[in-house]
Amino acid sequence: MERRIVIIGLGLIGGSVALALRNAWPTAAITGIDRDAANLDEALRRGAIDAVGDPAAVRDADMVLLAVPVRQLPTVLAAIAPHLQAATVISDVGSTKQDVAAAARAALGERVRQFVPAHPIAGREHSGMAAAASELFEGRTVVLTPLAENRAADVNRVKAIWQACGARAVEMTAGAHDEIFAAVSHLPHMLAFALVDEFAARANARSLFSFAASGFRDFTRIAGSSPEMWRDIALNNRAALVAEMDRYLQHAGALRDAIAAGDSAAIDALMQRARLAREHWLAGELDHFRDESA
Amino acid sequence: MERRIVIIGLGLIGGSVALALRNAWPTAAITGIDRDAANLDEALRRGAIDAVGDPAAVRDADMVLLAVPVRQLPTVLAAIAPHLQAATVISDVGSTKQDVAAAARAALGERVRQFVPAHPIAGREHSGMAAAASELFEGRTVVLTPLAENRAADVNRVKAIWQACGARAVEMTAGAHDEIFAAVSHLPHMLAFALVDEFAARANARSLFSFAASGFRDFTRIAGSSPEMWRDIALNNRAALVAEMDRYLQHAGALRDAIAAGDSAAIDALMQRARLAREHWLAGELDHFRDESA
Repeated sequence: MERRIVIIGLGLIGGSVALALRNAWPTAAITGIDRDAANLDEALRRGAIDAVGDPAAVRDADMVLLAVPVRQLPTVLAAIAPHLQAATVISDVGSTKQDVAAAARAALGERVRQFVPAHPIAGREHSGMAAAASELFEGRTVVLTPLAENRAADVNRVKAIWQACGARAVEMTAGAHDEIFAAVSHLPHMLAFALVDEFAARANARSLFSFAASGFRDFTRIAGSSPEMWRDIALNNRAALVAEMDRYLQHAGALRDAIAAGDSAAIDALMQRARLAREHWLAGELDHFRDESA
Repeated sequence: MERRIVIIGLGLIGGSVALALRNAWPTAAITGIDRDAANLDEALRRGAIDAVGDPAAVRDADMVLLAVPVRQLPTVLAAIAPHLQAATVISDVGSTKQDVAAAARAALGERVRQFVPAHPIAGREHSGMAAAASELFEGRTVVLTPLAENRAADVNRVKAIWQACGARAVEMTAGAHDEIFAAVSHLPHMLAFALVDEFAARANARSLFSFAASGFRDFTRIAGSSPEMWRDIALNNRAALVAEMDRYLQHAGALRDAIAAGDSAAIDALMQRARLAREHWLAGELDHFRDESA
């Protein structure tokens, strides 16, 4: 285990890591840093952290976890860089990985070898330390996108942190990560935000929302997410996301054309394929799907 | 209360009505008709119906509820028409209403005055009598779209049926119904089916589905719905649905363009509006929204 851990950013993710590590590694010393005093108070009150620190606290850390919005990474990295010791490992929790690698490389120079990028696939509708929970990562996946400069031992130390939180760690390149999450996460968020916004601007918006039911609620749940965070993700993963949106809009447009043409067979085939695929996915039958790398 | 009720189609909706009316009106005689013997057996076993009937059973009915797929309505109406008495009221549960009115008018001629179209806004992931539940309509809305020919007393009898099931009954025109549900229900279903199908066809589909998480699951839950039913809805409400898809694809395309252009302010404004609208909706604050008819 890591003996001295500094967590910068005690929101939902950073706070949940602190709570999980407190349970898994009771003797570890966890220092928290946050701009928000309420998050720090709540973290102390819940026993998630032992002490409140400042950037100089990383001098004594074995592991530093950056759990701040991706856009704040350059500032935070610049603040801790003067205090960083050679044996300390740094990781992050950002939803995009190519931009994080670039920011780390710019801020840390050759010490970027100490920085192992990671993305825990977990979230909740609510944010902040108040929503943090020690079991948030139980059974979830954490994607590590190691840099060419990373030492294998450091990658394994970051894996061990997440395994201690109950998660499964997998590795891939930052490019593969950003393409996959542009599709399965970033794209649906954009589609949900666009739908709710389009309805809200209507002259008959009140009628629409008064008849929207549970299907609409589930479909748009992700449009309740943080606009600041998702604006940044959209901009940080712009190329992959725009490619996904183009692909999707073309496919949805083809369905629109089939409906307009009254093409019952084409509509039926698309819906049958979709339902079957979703059933296989929910059943964990991933062999049903093509894998170009197989 | 109605004394003698015939329910044709003992799936999720018809079966749930039978169970709810059994509780609300214990002395009513409920006869069930279904092509599926398993549905009838289950309905008898659970006490949802008193007897199994055939189309001639409508001769003795005060109220006939057609809970079959919309495309089967012409056949079912033709089968019961010869047995229909003048005092009997008929209603349906279809998700589209202009096409139902046309089918009823074609099958019943001037006796269409006895047919009061309705659409209960309720559903579940699972279908069939096995998924039926007496509380399915508790607190839900049922939209009635009365015909010009309907007698007010007959409309009120259909309202009373649904109120006995725990639902709130509202009236609007069939055209208004079809436009509103094209937006809040039919459109999201099409978007979800298209997304899952698009992913399933990819060379890297296995990777995509192996990293899809809870946000994707909720966003695509409605793509688990019956393809047959949704193909029919798409075709039966084609004009309104195509108009909605065009409007949505244009709006999503504008978000795509803002992301491609790196227009942070436009992306942020759209997401902020969407989240705020969704919060108002979830809080029941419908005064937040424009109402052109006010």
